[in-house]
Amino acid sequence: MRVIQVQPLTREAFAPFGDVIEAGASAAMNAGRFERSVAQTTLDMAPPHPASVDVTTCKETTVFPYQFDVLERHPLGSQAFVPLSEFVFVVVVAPGGNEVNPDAVCAFVTNGRQGINYHRGTWHTPMIATAGQQFLLIERSGEEANCEERRLAAPLTLAAPA
Amino acid sequence: MRVIQVQPLTREAFAPFGDVIEAGASAAMNAGRFERSVAQTTLDMAPPHPASVDVTTCKETTVFPYQFDVLERHPLGSQAFVPLSEFVFVVVVAPGGNEVNPDAVCAFVTNGRQGINYHRGTWHTPMIATAGQQFLLIERSGEEANCEERRLAAPLTLAAPA
Repeated sequence: MRVIQVQPLTREAFAPFGDVIEAGASAAMNAGRFERSVAQTTLDMAPPHPASVDVTTCKETTVFPYQFDVLERHPLGSQAFVPLSEFVFVVVVAPGGNEVNPDAVCAFVTNGRQGINYHRGTWHTPMIATAGQQFLLIERSGEEANCEERRLAAPLTLAAPA
Repeated sequence: MRVIQVQPLTREAFAPFGDVIEAGASAAMNAGRFERSVAQTTLDMAPPHPASVDVTTCKETTVFPYQFDVLERHPLGSQAFVPLSEFVFVVVVAPGGNEVNPDAVCAFVTNGRQGINYHRGTWHTPMIATAGQQFLLIERSGEEANCEERRLAAPLTLAAPA
């Protein structure tokens, strides 16, 4: 059974799957009283459509090694998760497309001060986190069906982050 | 000179000016492994337009009592600020409209686990915070002019939160 190792989350490595949201290359705001990152990500809602912003709380800690056989994607919108305190989490993704290629599934671990925005259509697992951790969730609003799942022929195993 | 007292931020009291973003009345997600708040706020970008998500860092602590004579508004989009750790901050707002009514300026203090989304057109001061504090900023993307300012005839003073 294939065991997926996690790699550090960087903007470059994650680019095929989505954007990293973090403090960074910055611009002044409010006459220098704030600095801000610049265009870390743009929400992509199709067709042009509002996004909702909500708080999510993890109720069940994921135990490593973590075995999974289902991935999901959102065909109508990007989906962002940003931690509401400083903690590390793991992101598991595969390139968009009608089917999931199990050999292309890969995993990233954040540095504790990073969020992510999945591109519209990127395959990913449900969130992997620890009970009590909270994320801001920014996704397409409304009730329209916007989640597809694929079950893998064989489960994959995710190694614990180092 | 009028001194504005801060009041506790609640969804009801803030409704004329924007939405409160916080954990709350919730729905299950990921087969119960997460719970999420429901439709805390929806981004309102006119005309339907993407939003950007960035990290802002306060560089200069606001000292109370705080005197100010400028408010701003964003005619083309709502604007959300969500703290990236647990801390209290103060929000100063006035109803939308072409001019600012100084008598209608009011202030709210968060409970440490709340963010806000200003309605499109709500008058507000630049952010009031403490150096080092970080907020996620979700606003209309792009370079189009989307910030108007009004200078009050006389400055207002904001009392320190209790």
